Amino acid sequence: MKISIERGALLKAVGQAQSVVERRNTIPILANVLIEADGGTVSFRATDLDIEVVDRTPAVVDRAGATTVSAVMLHEIVRKLPDGALVNLSEDAASGRLTVMAGRSVFSLATLPKEDFPVMASSEYSSNFSASAPMLRRLFDKAKFAISTEETRYYLNGVYMHVAQGDEGPVLRCVATDGHRLARIDAPLPEGAAGMPGVIVPRKTVNELRKLLDDDEAQIAVSVSETKVRFATPQITMTSKVIDGTFPDYSRVIPVGNTRRLEVDAQEFAKAVDRVATVSSERSRAVKLSLDEDRLVLSVNAPDSGAAEEELAVAYGDERLEIGFNAKYLLEIASQVDRENAVFLFNSSGDPTLMREGSDMSAVYVVMPMRV
Amino acid sequence: MKISIERGALLKAVGQAQSVVERRNTIPILANVLIEADGGTVSFRATDLDIEVVDRTPAVVDRAGATTVSAVMLHEIVRKLPDGALVNLSEDAASGRLTVMAGRSVFSLATLPKEDFPVMASSEYSSNFSASAPMLRRLFDKAKFAISTEETRYYLNGVYMHVAQGDEGPVLRCVATDGHRLARIDAPLPEGAAGMPGVIVPRKTVNELRKLLDDDEAQIAVSVSETKVRFATPQITMTSKVIDGTFPDYSRVIPVGNTRRLEVDAQEFAKAVDRVATVSSERSRAVKLSLDEDRLVLSVNAPDSGAAEEELAVAYGDERLEIGFNAKYLLEIASQVDRENAVFLFNSSGDPTLMREGSDMSAVYVVMPMRV
Repeated sequence: MKISIERGALLKAVGQAQSVVERRNTIPILANVLIEADGGTVSFRATDLDIEVVDRTPAVVDRAGATTVSAVMLHEIVRKLPDGALVNLSEDAASGRLTVMAGRSVFSLATLPKEDFPVMASSEYSSNFSASAPMLRRLFDKAKFAISTEETRYYLNGVYMHVAQGDEGPVLRCVATDGHRLARIDAPLPEGAAGMPGVIVPRKTVNELRKLLDDDEAQIAVSVSETKVRFATPQITMTSKVIDGTFPDYSRVIPVGNTRRLEVDAQEFAKAVDRVATVSSERSRAVKLSLDEDRLVLSVNAPDSGAAEEELAVAYGDERLEIGFNAKYLLEIASQVDRENAVFLFNSSGDPTLMREGSDMSAVYVVMPMRV
Repeated sequence: MKISIERGALLKAVGQAQSVVERRNTIPILANVLIEADGGTVSFRATDLDIEVVDRTPAVVDRAGATTVSAVMLHEIVRKLPDGALVNLSEDAASGRLTVMAGRSVFSLATLPKEDFPVMASSEYSSNFSASAPMLRRLFDKAKFAISTEETRYYLNGVYMHVAQGDEGPVLRCVATDGHRLARIDAPLPEGAAGMPGVIVPRKTVNELRKLLDDDEAQIAVSVSETKVRFATPQITMTSKVIDGTFPDYSRVIPVGNTRRLEVDAQEFAKAVDRVATVSSERSRAVKLSLDEDRLVLSVNAPDSGAAEEELAVAYGDERLEIGFNAKYLLEIASQVDRENAVFLFNSSGDPTLMREGSDMSAVYVVMPMRV
């Protein structure tokens, strides 16, 4: 293998690959990136056995071939090369080294045989559809804060992407929950997605996927099977196993009879919650909301360290209510609101509370109260 | 106590104080800041028993008095208040709480009695002089990277500030070393400093002091005794114990007979060192310098992962030399060079190497080689 490639293009391709590689590997080849050059294209493939990323980029290929080198080391080297440098990668079969040359720098990197690299088995995908990057970004970004980190509830360690019946017809829906809060985000159902099986996309895949979605103009080809999901742009293909489990019936958790309605500027609300929570002890960060005619008082009482109280002018016309929440959960939910006011719908101080952005029903959040 | 103070002024004063406070305290009062209001001034005092910082700022004092509250919590609260807010602090002796009010926020913080706060004993200082902030900044900034972190060699855990005989007369000198590298920085001797006892300023003091030195126009009043050092601006007074030990005779470490002279662009050199060091294993980050007629080759050979080599055009006219260094040490020393080229003076591959900035003799660095 012998190729020449501009440093910027190489950095981008290797960067995406190396971020999938786990830092602590017991299997040496998993620390490596598989470089394959053929025709006018070079591809960089990395995997942790659950996710596989392949990044293709045009390059001058003088001699086709393939080898594997440490993903992190190659990325570090390319990152430190001067901007605009032309980088030559050439494999010396005799020494088993990959030579990286740029300007007056020469690196010779240890390789592992390309045959040892675990390439993910290809699957039959039952559904294939196309979705815009901004749409997928919204679905996953707004849901992922609620992903559970409890390993024993492995079926909650991801975002449940599935087809559901919305108020105005079928939607593509992402749901995440950790039992304390829940996010349910809807988007118009893309053509071809109707028969898609519901899949739980693991947390790491959600995070890695984010890098594919930065380009507002990009169209993402999505393929789904019972066991795998694939997201692809013309340059990058990311394939991931999905979590083998059953996502719980979340619809029963979403309250429908909550009538006490609070409307509040989401940013002002978040700032006030953050301020009063300062005095609370780390463990139980409980904030009390006391609601009365167009008036919200946030308060925290931490016997050891002190107390805090703040009043906000809000829109509220129902009877008096006192309800407590974990400050962190309130902050996270309030920070999902982009433009409009946050609308909270309460029932009693013991019941789950619903939150949405203004009158937009396509993003709905549920948070469990705590005793204060 | 009852005072009103603008949020920005309060944040600055409390910020400086809380940074001295150790996060993990077994003595509760050491987590607190002592607030004393009298006349038109409020002072904020914090200590870790080794360093004491007092920050004075003008305020509207309605009722004089003093109390102590958690430094970190007060700082967090003030930080989260809106910019430009007027903050009221009032002590309620009956409840033992300090009330912090701003806008519609009210905080009530637990206090500890002011009598329990350990105020550092005042000392007799044998020397008092004034030095500009930029001068002190240079002395400490350029020396501190070489401070030892080995706790058993406690006398190296700071910067040795003393009066020494420079080439052109007496100087104020800062020296730090960890046995592998050494920094020796000189500045013109300020008036009144001549009789000053040499003191080892601890690492934490050096770091905290840095915040007093940001203002280019500031004059710092420095007071030194055998056991303490004090740095003061009109607003802030920082008093620190000095390390009770004898700084070794560093002058014997600084080579005088090194004649092989390498001159190199410090930035280019640092970048090249950083690049070739990428392939080396974490432990022994050895870089080999091979010198020949106006030519420097940097190389690293790490059997497990690979090798790297880079050539630099330099000024070198002496006989061939191969010498190895720890890459981290080389990088740190090269990054001390601000404007000029780095000049290295070598003897043999087993002898300490001297580095300075161009022809400037007021900042001299020594680094020990390692076998490659």
